[in-house]
Amino acid sequence: MTGEIPHRDTLERIVGVLRKNKDILILEHEKPDGDSIGSGLALAMALSSLGKKAILLSQDPHPAMYDFLPGRHLHTTVSCIEPEDVDPGVTVFVDCTGPDRAGKALSYARSETWINLDHHVSNSGFGQISLVDLDAAATGELVFFLLKLMGAGINLDIATCLYVALVTDTGGFRYQNTTPRCFHVAAELIDKGVNPSQVADQLYEARSFSSLMLLKNALHTLEVYKNGQLASIDVTRAMLEDSGASLEDADSVVNYPRSIAGVEVALCFKESLDQTAVHLSLRSRSKVDVSKIAGLLGGGGHPRAAGAVIEGTFEQAKARVFGVLDGLEIWTDS
Amino acid sequence: MTGEIPHRDTLERIVGVLRKNKDILILEHEKPDGDSIGSGLALAMALSSLGKKAILLSQDPHPAMYDFLPGRHLHTTVSCIEPEDVDPGVTVFVDCTGPDRAGKALSYARSETWINLDHHVSNSGFGQISLVDLDAAATGELVFFLLKLMGAGINLDIATCLYVALVTDTGGFRYQNTTPRCFHVAAELIDKGVNPSQVADQLYEARSFSSLMLLKNALHTLEVYKNGQLASIDVTRAMLEDSGASLEDADSVVNYPRSIAGVEVALCFKESLDQTAVHLSLRSRSKVDVSKIAGLLGGGGHPRAAGAVIEGTFEQAKARVFGVLDGLEIWTDS
Repeated sequence: MTGEIPHRDTLERIVGVLRKNKDILILEHEKPDGDSIGSGLALAMALSSLGKKAILLSQDPHPAMYDFLPGRHLHTTVSCIEPEDVDPGVTVFVDCTGPDRAGKALSYARSETWINLDHHVSNSGFGQISLVDLDAAATGELVFFLLKLMGAGINLDIATCLYVALVTDTGGFRYQNTTPRCFHVAAELIDKGVNPSQVADQLYEARSFSSLMLLKNALHTLEVYKNGQLASIDVTRAMLEDSGASLEDADSVVNYPRSIAGVEVALCFKESLDQTAVHLSLRSRSKVDVSKIAGLLGGGGHPRAAGAVIEGTFEQAKARVFGVLDGLEIWTDS
Repeated sequence: MTGEIPHRDTLERIVGVLRKNKDILILEHEKPDGDSIGSGLALAMALSSLGKKAILLSQDPHPAMYDFLPGRHLHTTVSCIEPEDVDPGVTVFVDCTGPDRAGKALSYARSETWINLDHHVSNSGFGQISLVDLDAAATGELVFFLLKLMGAGINLDIATCLYVALVTDTGGFRYQNTTPRCFHVAAELIDKGVNPSQVADQLYEARSFSSLMLLKNALHTLEVYKNGQLASIDVTRAMLEDSGASLEDADSVVNYPRSIAGVEVALCFKESLDQTAVHLSLRSRSKVDVSKIAGLLGGGGHPRAAGAVIEGTFEQAKARVFGVLDGLEIWTDS
């Protein structure tokens, strides 16, 4: 099935531009995730193997859980290199809904041509060449087809990075974006030698003891409302201090209220370190568009995963959020 | 790749026997899991579609998390039917290491011919026809090839059951038994219309509130030993009562010590309801064969997942287990 290459015309235009240029800058989004990192590293390694000078750049460093990925020598952050030291012929944005998503790395994109590779519905369609495929489970899926068309050999290193892009953006083949095409691409990557259990161990089985202590503390606050359709959990600054867990560890806590049978909307309230605001994470199972709820609170995101930052104390922020939720006509009686 | 059918000769012999017989009994193992249930339901539905009278039988009922699977009208338990009411021409054991694994359902297997479909290294090789493939991620993988060879159409219902067999026995494509072949089979099943996110929601995102309360209580006992290579967690009878969780809920608790970075061996001590014994679950990451440790304690299992029942109070059982573990030369200094 992966013999059929989607978006062949656009991908051929991209291949043409990449072939013509020697210096290629690849930009990840701020706080890069597995898809941005995996896509970026795979593209950078493939271009290097074709004799190009490829630099992968991000505003923020890669989280430690991705340290096992190959190709890190091609990645740098804005704190390690000056804009004047980069002179790209073309810039490729991976997994960025708009140029601003590259954050401080944007000022390095001084090329005339910008290529936009993404799969988010909110992508602005920027760039001289824009390929935004809402059916792609991950931007890594588009990079996979790009490399096939470019004739860049997908070796084990490149395949591992693309597999990580797929597996992280589909939550381990569990989210609604997990399509047959994504599964066929994954199967092809595994045929290149990717070890799914080793990758899963690196991504999902390398928790810190303190992250489990944070979970223990947070579970004490788990509550269910609205006939079991809404569940909420708190992460306070005191919990972070008591457990020694990191802010990154707090990101996964919202998965627990989300995992309860019957829960459609899950909330996680995270107190800011200066205790002047609360970061709200919203998740939904299948029906409610939580990006709209986040919008009412000054935030945004995806239909199934969104967020907002709410000024005030923990109690004030929770009261405001529950006030908004109470006013929505999304809760059924049974 | 799934065009190549492995074990073609043995599978053709099985197809021949199944074609010749009208009444076919399929036996699951005691306390059936997703592989035994998914394999059994898929085989029963396929045989029914070919005009056979197929009964899927188990000693114990299916856990509620599998209620969403189709084909349940073909399944029954020993409490609902007498041995005399079953007169099979052939009996197929799915996912059973030996005939005794069928438990009380074994007395229904009054056919001359037994077919043994399994993937466990400890399978005794019983049956007139025995197909034990250690490279199969799940018995469901063997049923998939059997149905292809038999010319039984793999419709969406059958594909869903086989996908559940694969996804549960590989821990969501995370365990070491996740092979390229397993991934290609999964991709083919998804092409039949299986919805991976719906299946994952049913299997992994339908926890009870009380199971999370049990987890919270158990996390208070989480401890790490041996330079971080060993982690242990307790589930006491009091925790089950306090949380209202089921014994089934306790089964997944061992995944938490197992998930800590650097931990090679994980233990979960579960107090028996009559408080006269302790059920020990053992897991390992990649090196230690925990079935050997379980063997020293009178139990058994797989290299990466094993168990034992230890007589005595909680304190006595833990002292005995740590005594055995202290004597092993598997711990490194760094």
